[in-house]
Amino acid sequence: MTVTFEELQAFLAEQFPQGARYGTLEGLGDGWAEMKLEVDEGHLRPGGTVSGPAMMGLADVALYAALLGKIGLVPLAVTSNLNINFLRKPVAHSPIRARANMLRIGRATGVGQVYVYSEGMEEPVAHATITYSIPANR
Amino acid sequence: MTVTFEELQAFLAEQFPQGARYGTLEGLGDGWAEMKLEVDEGHLRPGGTVSGPAMMGLADVALYAALLGKIGLVPLAVTSNLNINFLRKPVAHSPIRARANMLRIGRATGVGQVYVYSEGMEEPVAHATITYSIPANR
Amino acid sequence: MTVTFEELQAFLAEQFPQGARYGTLEGLGDGWAEMKLEVDEGHLRPGGTVSGPAMMGLADVALYAALLGKIGLVPLAVTSNLNINFLRKPVAHSPIRARANMLRIGRATGVGQVYVYSEGMEEPVAHATITYSIPANR
Amino acid sequence: MTVTFEELQAFLAEQFPQGARYGTLEGLGDGWAEMKLEVDEGHLRPGGTVSGPAMMGLADVALYAALLGKIGLVPLAVTSNLNINFLRKPVAHSPIRARANMLRIGRATGVGQVYVYSEGMEEPVAHATITYSIPANR
Repeated sequence: MTVTFEELQAFLAEQFPQGARYGTLEGLGDGWAEMKLEVDEGHLRPGGTVSGPAMMGLADVALYAALLGKIGLVPLAVTSNLNINFLRKPVAHSPIRARANMLRIGRATGVGQVYVYSEGMEEPVAHATITYSIPANR
Repeated sequence: MTVTFEELQAFLAEQFPQGARYGTLEGLGDGWAEMKLEVDEGHLRPGGTVSGPAMMGLADVALYAALLGKIGLVPLAVTSNLNINFLRKPVAHSPIRARANMLRIGRATGVGQVYVYSEGMEEPVAHATITYSIPANR
Repeated sequence: MTVTFEELQAFLAEQFPQGARYGTLEGLGDGWAEMKLEVDEGHLRPGGTVSGPAMMGLADVALYAALLGKIGLVPLAVTSNLNINFLRKPVAHSPIRARANMLRIGRATGVGQVYVYSEGMEEPVAHATITYSIPANR
Repeated sequence: MTVTFEELQAFLAEQFPQGARYGTLEGLGDGWAEMKLEVDEGHLRPGGTVSGPAMMGLADVALYAALLGKIGLVPLAVTSNLNINFLRKPVAHSPIRARANMLRIGRATGVGQVYVYSEGMEEPVAHATITYSIPANR
């Protein structure tokens, strides 16, 4: 692996100065990453449910972490396609976790998938497939 | 049309008390809606670009508005699938707009598409296709 | 499980009289199914590669099999959304296999994912996420 | 426009020797193309409905035509992502038409959307968003 947990953590903190809003890195391995989001009022929908955009944002940054763990700290990698299925209603006011793993890393793009979990439930609350565009001169 | 612009505006303000973070309703017609988001620091990525989650969130709520304009103020309609392609980099610090229109409204689901625009650019910056699940007893 | 391997095999043969074009059932379990397609000239692209539509068709029917194995032989379940990422070029003239598993089965819809493999390669050649619409009065 | 209707028609006939199975070119313009498929027994599902794979295949090749009309006859452009929503049941035994238009053509990828129509119905039966990967040295 090109990048250590500490290096990636520092890089994400720098890229997302609003920090906690996008979640924190919890695990990093060969082609995978895990992130956690402590939900606050800004992430909620009526009834205390975590909002769709909060889950999408966490899934997006978790796969970004998994990709950067493999290709190095490329700041210009950007999401080009995201497809998400919302499967179950998350537990109200509970943190959410995203487990992301790459399916393919090519010359110009990286594709991976993400499972989103709600603390207190076994089954995933969402599943996403995401493509990142990787800049040519990295 | 079942719902007026003012009724929908009031409903969205009630559903999303954090208000401006999700955008404001700008237009409503038969099966379509338009929303605008004044970007603030929380919506930005390095370089001043509007973040992916901000665009996804605006697209999602714009199609929700278009759907509710047709079926009435059903609070329990939830997003079941969202697919988004990011097409171009938005103008830094510029507001974004979403124009959503329904492609089909069935018994249990509604499907539509959304174009996201960045003020100051003619071509769309993103395009999304979204499915809403409609509760059985509405 | 509601349905046996033999019952599902017979049902698919009846539903798809053109048979082999859509593949044959190879395995069935609790929420999963595996299908195989012997590629013929009609499934090929220039260079002997298996065509995208052949992979999409196999993925689609494999998840249909996984769903029916759980809910019973419901002929009116139809695909409502399919998202597929093509990851690698399949081996020329080699059979392809689809391993499908359900992520969620609800009242009105079932969502699952499918990995498509090309015989002779370890990594998947495609990954799909598919939603089936389940008729109300089954 | 780089390519004429006749040049593209000849190119598609050469690329897809099984010809009619994938449809015929009906129109070509700046960033758009229209194709038609005369459905035969191999494209049908029980009840005489056009199958999902037949609609996906037609959508795929229609956007391929729209892309090639802009970038020239590049044989190595391949589909990398396809997302399709099935909206309505097509008319039994009726031809289907696909109207494809590009949303963006970049250095390495092209993104577009396709509406699929069934002859005899006004509303679309399916809507797809497709990404093509464009080879580096064209």
